[in-house]
Amino acid sequence: MSTKRIIVIGGSAAGPKAASKARRMDENAEITIIQKASDLSMASCGYPYYIGGFFDDRDQLLCSPAGVVRDSKFFWNAKKITTMVNTEVTAVDRARKQVRYTDLVSGMGGSLEYDKLIIATGSTPRMPQIPGLELDGVTTLQSLPDADYLRKVRDEGIIRKAVVIGGGLIGIETCEALNLAGIEITLIELLPQLLTFLDKKMAKLVEKYVMTKANVILENGVAALLGENGKLVAVKLQNGTEIPCQLAVIAIGVVPNTKLAKESGLPIGPSGGMMVNEYMQTTDPDIYAVGDCIEIPNLITGASVHAPYGDLANLQGRVAGENVISGNVARFPGTIQTGICKVFDYGVGATGLSKKNCHRAGITSIETVVNASLDKPGFMQGKLLITKLIVDKLTGNILGAQVLGPGDVSKQVAIWAMAIKGKLTVEDMVNADLPYAPPYSLAIDHSIATAHIMQNKLSGRFSGISSEQLREKLKTKDAIVLLDVRNPDEYEQMRLGIGEKLIPLGQLRKRLEELPQDKSIEIITWCKISLRGYEAALILQANGFQNVKVLEGGIMAWPYKREK
Amino acid sequence: MSTKRIIVIGGSAAGPKAASKARRMDENAEITIIQKASDLSMASCGYPYYIGGFFDDRDQLLCSPAGVVRDSKFFWNAKKITTMVNTEVTAVDRARKQVRYTDLVSGMGGSLEYDKLIIATGSTPRMPQIPGLELDGVTTLQSLPDADYLRKVRDEGIIRKAVVIGGGLIGIETCEALNLAGIEITLIELLPQLLTFLDKKMAKLVEKYVMTKANVILENGVAALLGENGKLVAVKLQNGTEIPCQLAVIAIGVVPNTKLAKESGLPIGPSGGMMVNEYMQTTDPDIYAVGDCIEIPNLITGASVHAPYGDLANLQGRVAGENVISGNVARFPGTIQTGICKVFDYGVGATGLSKKNCHRAGITSIETVVNASLDKPGFMQGKLLITKLIVDKLTGNILGAQVLGPGDVSKQVAIWAMAIKGKLTVEDMVNADLPYAPPYSLAIDHSIATAHIMQNKLSGRFSGISSEQLREKLKTKDAIVLLDVRNPDEYEQMRLGIGEKLIPLGQLRKRLEELPQDKSIEIITWCKISLRGYEAALILQANGFQNVKVLEGGIMAWPYKREK
Repeated sequence: MSTKRIIVIGGSAAGPKAASKARRMDENAEITIIQKASDLSMASCGYPYYIGGFFDDRDQLLCSPAGVVRDSKFFWNAKKITTMVNTEVTAVDRARKQVRYTDLVSGMGGSLEYDKLIIATGSTPRMPQIPGLELDGVTTLQSLPDADYLRKVRDEGIIRKAVVIGGGLIGIETCEALNLAGIEITLIELLPQLLTFLDKKMAKLVEKYVMTKANVILENGVAALLGENGKLVAVKLQNGTEIPCQLAVIAIGVVPNTKLAKESGLPIGPSGGMMVNEYMQTTDPDIYAVGDCIEIPNLITGASVHAPYGDLANLQGRVAGENVISGNVARFPGTIQTGICKVFDYGVGATGLSKKNCHRAGITSIETVVNASLDKPGFMQGKLLITKLIVDKLTGNILGAQVLGPGDVSKQVAIWAMAIKGKLTVEDMVNADLPYAPPYSLAIDHSIATAHIMQNKLSGRFSGISSEQLREKLKTKDAIVLLDVRNPDEYEQMRLGIGEKLIPLGQLRKRLEELPQDKSIEIITWCKISLRGYEAALILQANGFQNVKVLEGGIMAWPYKREK
Repeated sequence: MSTKRIIVIGGSAAGPKAASKARRMDENAEITIIQKASDLSMASCGYPYYIGGFFDDRDQLLCSPAGVVRDSKFFWNAKKITTMVNTEVTAVDRARKQVRYTDLVSGMGGSLEYDKLIIATGSTPRMPQIPGLELDGVTTLQSLPDADYLRKVRDEGIIRKAVVIGGGLIGIETCEALNLAGIEITLIELLPQLLTFLDKKMAKLVEKYVMTKANVILENGVAALLGENGKLVAVKLQNGTEIPCQLAVIAIGVVPNTKLAKESGLPIGPSGGMMVNEYMQTTDPDIYAVGDCIEIPNLITGASVHAPYGDLANLQGRVAGENVISGNVARFPGTIQTGICKVFDYGVGATGLSKKNCHRAGITSIETVVNASLDKPGFMQGKLLITKLIVDKLTGNILGAQVLGPGDVSKQVAIWAMAIKGKLTVEDMVNADLPYAPPYSLAIDHSIATAHIMQNKLSGRFSGISSEQLREKLKTKDAIVLLDVRNPDEYEQMRLGIGEKLIPLGQLRKRLEELPQDKSIEIITWCKISLRGYEAALILQANGFQNVKVLEGGIMAWPYKREK
């Protein structure tokens, strides 16, 4: 058998992974990575933490786990992979099975033949169509030069004010990084919420928290970047407001790099990414594609989605690297769009479908609950977790979960991601057997408690009301009793202050006469997290009150202003 | 319908949970908890942390999440549950549906009738048959008085030396607690390993770590506790050694409290616990049992096991509480024996079957791998995780996982527990979609990387050798090449020193002639965690070496003494 020639276009994440896997599958293949940038295997998800000063050694962004910088020499010595950096592939000639390239330093061009080609061209920041993009002080956070620039901003300590444009994952991570650099931040988002992978109320909780660290402006786009002498001096919003700043970071999303694919006649999907099958193969059997430039199936809805996550890029790279050597034996089935981000001292994550995405996908028979509790006992310094769980009302199948708070969000999201992977139902989750010890979890883990609440709701044991629904209700003139069932000292420390009456749970049975004679009047109960709120609702229902609802997640999940 | 009378025997964990759930299901039932101890709803899993000084307020062991001590008044006011503390049930008269009890303070007796009875009598520490158990300074760590005693030891600061008898979960937690109290500990275990839920080599890694904090003596039982003037002065081992100490904590396991059950003619299972069906019901349809006094099915083997975990007790209580009111509607299917414990700064956890337990259950077609990696990137201060994964070789089904190290063990164990719950295979796990961001995980999560290694092993891409097997091999005279493929500076800092040759991976292809001409000679490769070891093995195989093995988990998983 003649030596196989493998070319990989793109040297950031998915590309090197594919090349390395191909090498492990075949010691004799000729493997070449062609990379437009000057660096290889950059840990781009780590840029915000380098900028934020979590670490100072830039090489750590480029190192193997053993601490060796992954440069061309490393790739050749350790993996016998040829790498051509600062080199752009300008065309793919599918008929001749050649790529044409240009060395961006020398300007020289050339061509290389392949037996199998892997396209891993990644994505590029989406840019708004506004004046001023060329000004000094305007950047994105996508490339290593971007990270170098923002790290320099941190190290110099001159810039005092920055605007971050875009309230998605990268925008929020950028906020934290710049805040840690001592810079005053204003975060601008065109949509009415941050982090669109969350449902609105959960996003509102994040917003409330981010507002303790940065100015947050929603439902307002950027009209222009204003400069003086070529330097940014302010960001002008669509409503006319001007925000003085010396730095603007644009983070309104990314678009797959598909120019080469389009020019080569390879098909592009509905989400704008290259289309591949589960073997990561395009319609050309000799061309594979992986990473941020492709789109993949959402495993719940079947819809094709652009999911530019670093973990998936690596998994896809591994699959393509195996298949270019061994034929189509490895599969990457798709994604449930699990994600997490650090938002200052909160974790915020999600897996599966949001309520919004259920509706978009035409899944309407859903039930949701919000649970708030500590991640471990108070005596072990437990921290708050808030989870929104979404299930199929008819089958009990878990469709999605959103988790946030200072508690151990990462574990919770992993649990729900695995539940979805295993096609588990609420009934399966109510007796999940998870690792319990006080340093790690409550006796009934937060995830299991969330399943319990869902089980109670599905079986009609209680009706919940979301904080959003309650706030809407407060605007009407309907007769309604609002009942906080905590203790007086808790009430003194913190309360909603929306007209509620305080009857501690322990006194409720004796003080029922303080409630309306008309037992059809709606009563809404809560406590800090609504466990006692639920018990109160059961007591009221048992005493003939016909219209009792529990405020889901209690005071801790109330995303609006409180009296105290 | 007349008012239902529910009696719960036992007021620690499962009992109060059952009673509370019954109350939530039926506001009108008469519910009574009869508790032998003087306290209720004690967070007994928290005792080691109270003793260790993680918190100082004893009430926190007895509090509701809202900070109210769960005493008789609390149970009556908040839950309308009658509690009789310091009261022992002496007999269950199943024919009359009565329990007879004695007030342990007044000595007065009485009887109460039930419609449904829930037995939650818990377990008692197993005691060795040795002289000296009555001495001052000899204790267990099971009850709140035990915790009070050991906390007093901490607070007084007089005792300098202690012996902990038993290297199981509670023994190890006790070691940590007493170590934090400044006491010098010797840990004695009769078996050849600590923590029997781990396979031997994993336990060896724990042992190696515990030895940095305490003296550890294995394969040696206690012959006698020696005293002077009624006070403990030494522990005498079976081999004659005497260990001077002023404190001995006995933690050699627990036995289910089944005296009442036996006397009432209720069946006891093969593991010594009460037998119940999946509704938590005994053979008497009006008697349920929950918590540490019962045995339950292992969901993988079907065998009946005694699994005295606080989380399961709570889940069982919830099921019994619902069923005594609503008939048998709720189920508790069983356990996969997921557990975790904090061992100083390590987490140590397991779920599913160990290799040992697979063999006991007659499951022989298994494959295992050991993976060592960081839990998140080095630049985010990632910490080490070591995982042993056990799968069914024929189906790829995940059977069990053991995880330990300073890294985020809790999330890893939760992931594998959910994988087993979802009956997932290695193929499912290689593309798991878990939450990735540098503050929480590597781009390829440790669990997924472990699945990748397993996939490579199952598909014959490499042969592994465990450190245990390698050590055995070193005792023979067989010709063998030991190959460390790290860099010279890594080798200078740390190495096994068992006769290995150093050829850095990046030089291996050029230095093949330094290896034996006879390509059938066995070569064993490794690096720090054996990722490079695996790459080296592939290079050697591709160059005709026929007998290459990778040391699993590399140097990090080597549980024996190293040269450096």
